[in-house]
Amino acid sequence: MNGTSDTNAAQCPLPHRPEGETITLAHGEGGRLTRQLIRRTILPRMRNPWLEPLGDAAILAACPERIVVTTDAFVVSPLFFPGGDIGRLSVYGTVNDLAVAGARPQWLSLSLILEEGLAIATLERVLDSVAAAAERTGVTIVTGDTKVVPRGAADGLFITTTGVGVLAEPAWAGPLAIEPGDVIVVSGPIGRHGMAVLAARHGLELEPPPSSDCAPLNEAVEGLRRRGVPVRALRDATRGGVAAVLHEWADASGVSFELDEAAVPVTPEVRGACELLGLDPLHVANEGTMLIAVEPAGVEDCLEALREVSVTRDPAVIGRAMKRTLAPVVVRRVLGREQPLDEPLGAPLPRIC
Amino acid sequence: MNGTSDTNAAQCPLPHRPEGETITLAHGEGGRLTRQLIRRTILPRMRNPWLEPLGDAAILAACPERIVVTTDAFVVSPLFFPGGDIGRLSVYGTVNDLAVAGARPQWLSLSLILEEGLAIATLERVLDSVAAAAERTGVTIVTGDTKVVPRGAADGLFITTTGVGVLAEPAWAGPLAIEPGDVIVVSGPIGRHGMAVLAARHGLELEPPPSSDCAPLNEAVEGLRRRGVPVRALRDATRGGVAAVLHEWADASGVSFELDEAAVPVTPEVRGACELLGLDPLHVANEGTMLIAVEPAGVEDCLEALREVSVTRDPAVIGRAMKRTLAPVVVRRVLGREQPLDEPLGAPLPRIC
Repeated sequence: MNGTSDTNAAQCPLPHRPEGETITLAHGEGGRLTRQLIRRTILPRMRNPWLEPLGDAAILAACPERIVVTTDAFVVSPLFFPGGDIGRLSVYGTVNDLAVAGARPQWLSLSLILEEGLAIATLERVLDSVAAAAERTGVTIVTGDTKVVPRGAADGLFITTTGVGVLAEPAWAGPLAIEPGDVIVVSGPIGRHGMAVLAARHGLELEPPPSSDCAPLNEAVEGLRRRGVPVRALRDATRGGVAAVLHEWADASGVSFELDEAAVPVTPEVRGACELLGLDPLHVANEGTMLIAVEPAGVEDCLEALREVSVTRDPAVIGRAMKRTLAPVVVRRVLGREQPLDEPLGAPLPRIC
Repeated sequence: MNGTSDTNAAQCPLPHRPEGETITLAHGEGGRLTRQLIRRTILPRMRNPWLEPLGDAAILAACPERIVVTTDAFVVSPLFFPGGDIGRLSVYGTVNDLAVAGARPQWLSLSLILEEGLAIATLERVLDSVAAAAERTGVTIVTGDTKVVPRGAADGLFITTTGVGVLAEPAWAGPLAIEPGDVIVVSGPIGRHGMAVLAARHGLELEPPPSSDCAPLNEAVEGLRRRGVPVRALRDATRGGVAAVLHEWADASGVSFELDEAAVPVTPEVRGACELLGLDPLHVANEGTMLIAVEPAGVEDCLEALREVSVTRDPAVIGRAMKRTLAPVVVRRVLGREQPLDEPLGAPLPRIC
């Protein structure tokens, strides 16, 4: 990820308003104050010809290619964490879902649920981050909605983004096509997002603190396509981490996967935090890191294509598909033992995205 | 609205699960419990070829006509109220935004934010209502997302729907084209949604209780188009009610509007509740009632087209556009006085949708 675009609390530019000004219920009523909020706070940050009329719907282009739609709610806590914030996350998360589905991201809708009492300066920081992320990825925010709920009925700020893209050719075959022998590549060190959010939420004083991988994957996906890498399937490893993706792929394809733990890239910060908390990095969420199942002949091309893009500059081969065994996913641990890798059942990491 | 499809608490079918089963944080983790929730509770109610693969994105059709996108967050409290519920509201609200923008609604995404502790039976009732509303309006729920936040970080259940439709011909000119002399038609009695929600929330024992107008407008809009009614602009009068729409149109077109209060249809229940609470029905939200600005020669056709659809069977001419005066909107009150109609500033009616 581009370090210069981080929005850590310490690096943030001064807020544009006095700290005291906050969101009130009247900002959500659809009347004059709602329009003021939209015109003064939201529109100036993401002005474009579709959003400008402030209608309830945006009339976009005809699409001779098939359109692709995805949606995600973002409820991360805290709103700002090392390496990212809810605004950037809500754009990259949706852009990445489109990219790994084989689409070129084009348009985004932005739906805000604000808690009464939220500092308008906080909202402004988040919107600045949304706008910067949209610009970086070339998507346009074409329509939106703002609701306000009373104190205690939400936690600060939730964002739902919906992305619309157009299908790019060639399309990936998808997880059903994965065959024994296919190679599993990860686009970078894993577990960074989950550990950054957990450490920030609980005030763990790790030095250096883990930093989120929150970043867009569309450029890297485009690179794989341009180079003609024989990709079977792609997936960003978000909630549930690498383990969740491999379990889904095993279900879909009927193969098993074996991973080589020693080959899985993990930063020292993430490794330290995971050991402290008793977590396996393979279960921890990422927000700018993807798995690629690739035909064996295409592995070198795949790695080279990824290395050309800063977000995915440290990819690694971490495993392969094999004939179905009893366990859908097996890890050869560093000490040589082979262990089944459980599917994440849930619960250790709420509100990670 | 079709009375037989109401989902009042008293008429609701038995829940499908023991009351005690509730949403846990693990349901939101992206692991096995998330997939169980989706496969057992969500998918069976809205099964279709796009949703079925449970990918993060849905690959839809090519669209030779221009696509139209709209999004809305729904945070209504209570979740169930006479005449509707959050599920139906979240579908009709988005369908109506597309319809009044001149589009034929086709696809919907559904993003859920669930509070830990929500009864799964409640979620099931809401999803049944979403599915029924989608079926009634001919839209398909093609993708979705589910997040869970801890107790106290949300209030039960929030839904964000994003709708994608294709632009229908002929397109309406829009509010900029409104001219002095144009006639303002309302498609039915106003203020029903806002008063139904307020009465339900505060346990006002009104007899009969006001019932929401929560209903789809796409069929009525299609009827106007089929009949070739010379519509200038259309808008469903949601938050801020009739007053908010007319103020927006006055801003856009540079005309003023005069309303004849005696001609504005208001049911006795809504009138009674508004008098009790000191509210003007012109400021109260609707969820299945629209304003139409129509050329004078088309008024009869407009009324006839509306009367053919059950949702809009009682339309009325309530005012007209005139050259700009000091006030953007003026009401001739029942007793003959002319008064400026304020733009709603906000605040009396939080969480109405």
